[in-house]
Amino acid sequence: MSTRSKITYTFTDEAPALATYSLLPIVKAFAASAGIDVETRDISLAARILASFSDRLGADKKVEDDLAQLAALATSPDANIIKLPNISASVPQLKGAIAELQALGYDIPAFPEDPQTDAEKEIRARYSKVLGSAVNPVLREGNSDRRAPAAVKAYARKHPHSMGKWSMASQSHADYMRGGDFFSSEKSITMDKAGDVRIEFVGKDGKVEVKKQLHLEAGEVFDGMFMSCKKLRAFFEKTLQDCKETGVMWSLHVKATMMKVSHPIVFGHAVSVYYKDVFEKYGKLFDELGVNPNNGLSSVYDKIKALPASQQEEILHDIHEVYSHRPEMAMVDSVKGITNLHIPSDVIVDASMPAMIRNSGQMWGKDGKQKDTKAVMPESTYARIYQEMINFCKTNGAFDPTTMGSVPNVGLMAQKAEEYGSHDKTFEMKADGTMRVVLADGTVLFQHEVEAGDIWRACQTKDAPIRDWVKLAVTRARQSNTPAIFWLDPERAHDRELRQKVETYLKEHDTSGLDISIMDYNQAIRVSMERLIRGKDTISVTGNVLRDYLTDLFPIMELGTSAKMLSIVPLMAGGGMYETGAGGSAPKHVQQLLEENYLRWDSLGEFLALAVSLEDTGIKTGNAKAKILGKTLDEATGKLLDNNKSPARKVGELDNRGSHFYLALYWAQALAAQDEDAELKAHFAPLAKTLSEKEATIVAELNGAQGKSVDIGGYYRSNPELTSKVMRPSATFNAAIDALS
Amino acid sequence: MSTRSKITYTFTDEAPALATYSLLPIVKAFAASAGIDVETRDISLAARILASFSDRLGADKKVEDDLAQLAALATSPDANIIKLPNISASVPQLKGAIAELQALGYDIPAFPEDPQTDAEKEIRARYSKVLGSAVNPVLREGNSDRRAPAAVKAYARKHPHSMGKWSMASQSHADYMRGGDFFSSEKSITMDKAGDVRIEFVGKDGKVEVKKQLHLEAGEVFDGMFMSCKKLRAFFEKTLQDCKETGVMWSLHVKATMMKVSHPIVFGHAVSVYYKDVFEKYGKLFDELGVNPNNGLSSVYDKIKALPASQQEEILHDIHEVYSHRPEMAMVDSVKGITNLHIPSDVIVDASMPAMIRNSGQMWGKDGKQKDTKAVMPESTYARIYQEMINFCKTNGAFDPTTMGSVPNVGLMAQKAEEYGSHDKTFEMKADGTMRVVLADGTVLFQHEVEAGDIWRACQTKDAPIRDWVKLAVTRARQSNTPAIFWLDPERAHDRELRQKVETYLKEHDTSGLDISIMDYNQAIRVSMERLIRGKDTISVTGNVLRDYLTDLFPIMELGTSAKMLSIVPLMAGGGMYETGAGGSAPKHVQQLLEENYLRWDSLGEFLALAVSLEDTGIKTGNAKAKILGKTLDEATGKLLDNNKSPARKVGELDNRGSHFYLALYWAQALAAQDEDAELKAHFAPLAKTLSEKEATIVAELNGAQGKSVDIGGYYRSNPELTSKVMRPSATFNAAIDALS
Repeated sequence: MSTRSKITYTFTDEAPALATYSLLPIVKAFAASAGIDVETRDISLAARILASFSDRLGADKKVEDDLAQLAALATSPDANIIKLPNISASVPQLKGAIAELQALGYDIPAFPEDPQTDAEKEIRARYSKVLGSAVNPVLREGNSDRRAPAAVKAYARKHPHSMGKWSMASQSHADYMRGGDFFSSEKSITMDKAGDVRIEFVGKDGKVEVKKQLHLEAGEVFDGMFMSCKKLRAFFEKTLQDCKETGVMWSLHVKATMMKVSHPIVFGHAVSVYYKDVFEKYGKLFDELGVNPNNGLSSVYDKIKALPASQQEEILHDIHEVYSHRPEMAMVDSVKGITNLHIPSDVIVDASMPAMIRNSGQMWGKDGKQKDTKAVMPESTYARIYQEMINFCKTNGAFDPTTMGSVPNVGLMAQKAEEYGSHDKTFEMKADGTMRVVLADGTVLFQHEVEAGDIWRACQTKDAPIRDWVKLAVTRARQSNTPAIFWLDPERAHDRELRQKVETYLKEHDTSGLDISIMDYNQAIRVSMERLIRGKDTISVTGNVLRDYLTDLFPIMELGTSAKMLSIVPLMAGGGMYETGAGGSAPKHVQQLLEENYLRWDSLGEFLALAVSLEDTGIKTGNAKAKILGKTLDEATGKLLDNNKSPARKVGELDNRGSHFYLALYWAQALAAQDEDAELKAHFAPLAKTLSEKEATIVAELNGAQGKSVDIGGYYRSNPELTSKVMRPSATFNAAIDALS
Repeated sequence: MSTRSKITYTFTDEAPALATYSLLPIVKAFAASAGIDVETRDISLAARILASFSDRLGADKKVEDDLAQLAALATSPDANIIKLPNISASVPQLKGAIAELQALGYDIPAFPEDPQTDAEKEIRARYSKVLGSAVNPVLREGNSDRRAPAAVKAYARKHPHSMGKWSMASQSHADYMRGGDFFSSEKSITMDKAGDVRIEFVGKDGKVEVKKQLHLEAGEVFDGMFMSCKKLRAFFEKTLQDCKETGVMWSLHVKATMMKVSHPIVFGHAVSVYYKDVFEKYGKLFDELGVNPNNGLSSVYDKIKALPASQQEEILHDIHEVYSHRPEMAMVDSVKGITNLHIPSDVIVDASMPAMIRNSGQMWGKDGKQKDTKAVMPESTYARIYQEMINFCKTNGAFDPTTMGSVPNVGLMAQKAEEYGSHDKTFEMKADGTMRVVLADGTVLFQHEVEAGDIWRACQTKDAPIRDWVKLAVTRARQSNTPAIFWLDPERAHDRELRQKVETYLKEHDTSGLDISIMDYNQAIRVSMERLIRGKDTISVTGNVLRDYLTDLFPIMELGTSAKMLSIVPLMAGGGMYETGAGGSAPKHVQQLLEENYLRWDSLGEFLALAVSLEDTGIKTGNAKAKILGKTLDEATGKLLDNNKSPARKVGELDNRGSHFYLALYWAQALAAQDEDAELKAHFAPLAKTLSEKEATIVAELNGAQGKSVDIGGYYRSNPELTSKVMRPSATFNAAIDALS
């Protein structure tokens, strides 16, 4: 090999950071055999705080701004970043970290709760940059590549999760609007040159209200669409009547979290239609009390607490009356009496629909029993894919995890592409009139006649991300030798614009021998499912919302969870970022380690991300050894899953460190067993032998350390020596790994 | 125009022949304006008898063999044949015709019921050629082109038939075997050169029984497949259990008429599984009585009549007991208590499934009420298209005849292609063993391990018809500017062979600008339906069975009936045959004419066939006037339908002759109104004027003739002068038509 390559491993917070102390030495030792350096970048909350105030720290305590370096790296072709979960800090967390750092002798200022002076304001501004989701927006400079790793897929095939049987006579279905929704009103244009646009409302009186001003790039796709309030409410009423007639249970599936302006309004209409009698009877009172149906029926329960007991009882009685003539509603918690309409964030479509489909197409009724269900999803654009899958399951039975193929996803998301939920471009109409999108020179790009209550929204998609997305699709199709389908609906305005670009950009690539097609959503999911039940894989190449939905839908069928998916962000500049797992940085796990020296954190996400990072390094730099390292790491992970060597939950059993030992053992064994590279074989054979022979000793040393409290010298910035000692308690194992270098 | 062209109109029997006396003079007069001669060929039963014995007739009574001439014409590129329904003579009909002809002075021999002498045997042989379906096999030298004529389609859009609403919560579905059926065992080969093959059964003892010997042509496709008896019976039991659990009604849909060996056996298994308790209890008795479940439960009722009353009652009691633990079964006639399993020919899949789908997916229960139904169709090959349509209707609602597009069909059928029902190559296995297809040199082409009771069958498809079918598909796609989909399933052995040929033969044609694709059945019907509900047409290019099924399924959705379809047989030699209507030659209509001079026959089929015959003449000979005649005839037919000028049913109302008058009026008006051809416009303007002005007079003359008995001088060979006089009673109308020449 001519040049050494580099993998950048992020040092983050809490449990993943602790696990890094154990795992990283192993990774470094293995990677070195392929000439790969594994460097770290500390993007922990503590490091980010210190970097923000490095001008105030002495030379000995100075901390580099690793996040800034990482962000710069993300826009360089050499980036190969393993991104572990980090703290998205709330104010209490930030304050805790500040206190700990101050105690460690770092001269950083207190958090100014209510900044007054310019100095305080400047401090507050620095801290603000550290708060919340401060890492992902900086690093996600690419589109999304999500797939089930081979090892996880193999595990699911051998140890399938339960799947509820489907009856051909099932009455369950997904129902959606046939007109009057975003789908049917969507208009879309592509900017031929850069320009400023205004989103305006023109009232019946001709008065113009500018809602938003934007700068659009050349080649940017811009869409506008609206949902009719009247038609939405009529649709809800129709679905309720239909359920009443057919006896099928009613349920609502929206995504009020992501579509955080539009979907709470949609949800609110569902509440005020279902409980129409109550909202009509108490309309004035509810207004006075500040009841907001967009917050669910719980808003009624909350607000009426201010009323006298007798009046509360009357309202509660009327709410109960509603149930006597409305159809049965799916329950979130039948024991506690929490319905589908209680809280807008309880039922999130991308999780709730796969769960329903896995559960024989049924949800739970108020008696706690499973029942056939009408899944109401007003917006038809994406709802149809669920109806397609329901029909498919009725016809072909439930998916079989032991034989089914896979549907990986290549999703358009870079530079906030297709952020339909974008609340800054979503408006609830206050009056009848016209919504229009106008160029600076007054040219009207498109417009919609709207009525009071309608929900209007716009969506942006820049050109460069689309071009990159096409490239990513071709690359994935080539690398995995798998057919790829672009999900673009010729009946959708936005998709017609995208289709033109896709057809253009596909010509920039060698697609010979590849099976790349463009289909509408129904056909795309149907073809993918027909292949799925025949054990075949199909890449779904989709927009941002479908990316979100499909990377739950298919993984939940295939793997029983979407948490075990590989989540790769091939950066537009040419580098790669490999995100590990979901579910945050697990503060409870830290507590358990401190109290009983047991770390429950599962590094599966890191194993998977590392394998693909190595594979990618191999491909990009022509490093055959790196490819073999990646392949054998996948084998090792598979064996680890098979042999149930993932961390358990209790002292005395294998924990995070023990699972790392087995990973090293299996990885070394796989390298010693392979015959593609004699050098690697020879290099790892002794380690495989040692670890194998000393398995009992090492496990005894690892597990023997458990059971007593430990001190690692800090929470947000633990002492490296202390932490390393705690996280590497087996002298035998450490010696074997160190001997590799 | 350089050459005069020719249309050959068949003179047949009974009502269509009577109608010809009225219609033909009109047709001749109109066709002459485009330089087209309309000649007739008499293929009536009487003419065919006389032609068979022309050597015995005097020179004055000699009759030419028009059918032989027509058959010769069918293999010539010049053929343009309008084929009306004719008598497929039974022996009583034949004897009636002989008697009539003898009375008319024709010296023909009596029908020898029991021929003994060589002379008698020779006579009998001549008569045998006249018996039964003697015309179609001689003439159908081509594939099938069926479509809804523009006029009929327009009528259906304006006057839609009723369509039952579909509920998204419908439990109806089509259920079929998942393995063990013909689909899953199908093997197929293409002969690289001509050769003789044997179909053999090899017993477990090694004994070989030759079941059939065949000569196969080079390029011929030959398939073998079997249905497992055990799996079929297990499947029936499973469907019954499923219905019992879900409360969905059970129904069976086979085609015992066409698949006349295999499907009665399948039907028989359904009977003996449903009534398992009865057949187990009385097995021996039923054998002795000769009960055959393949003939339905009616066979039990018939045969037990031989038993004492008390024993009959016991059996009937046990049959009724069955209903207490079996699911409810769909009824053919709930009033008479005739179930789905009573008689094998009562429920024929290609008619029963469209009826069910038009009827909200429901069939009738024993209480006479509509209910959701499991439609059981064991063989999965074609059953899946019905499930696909059911899922589609659940999702999108019932089809809307006022807006839906059309699915015309190009069907492979020439030279008995894909005659799956062919009883001479279908065998019910008597024992376990091997069925194999062997070349003369002993090479085994393919084989199946079978068990006693399994149904094995073979299917032939010659190469030339396939090539012609591809050509026909391209021609239709070009002429109608409509996308065409070849329905070929890559998972089916036979279809894989055909697909290769289709891909090869498509290259023989200029397909530039055409949208021709190949899809599996599910995808093909789905794409066709998605287009259908958007008002778009799609040509289905299918094998023989799908031709049969689809030309009922789509027409019944689109038009409410399949009787109004155009049925064209483009002859392989280049000519065309245009079949008119279905439903036989209507002897009852003749009786009504004789008794009250009222002919109820509807010549719609002739109008439609003639229009396309004229259009085809126009295209083939570059005769623009012929094209205009065809187009205006379609317009006239549309107007006739719109204005309700089809024959009524009772004396005093418009009959066949009156509808011909209105056709002539509207046709002349359309020609006078068009501006494409000034000559035609000028030629027909006077006629349009005359007929329009004299409408009241003509209708009075036509309807005034009704109400008294008439004599036409014969039934099988009526007197031409007498018949013509009866069928053309309006002097005013006759004069107007005659004036055209």
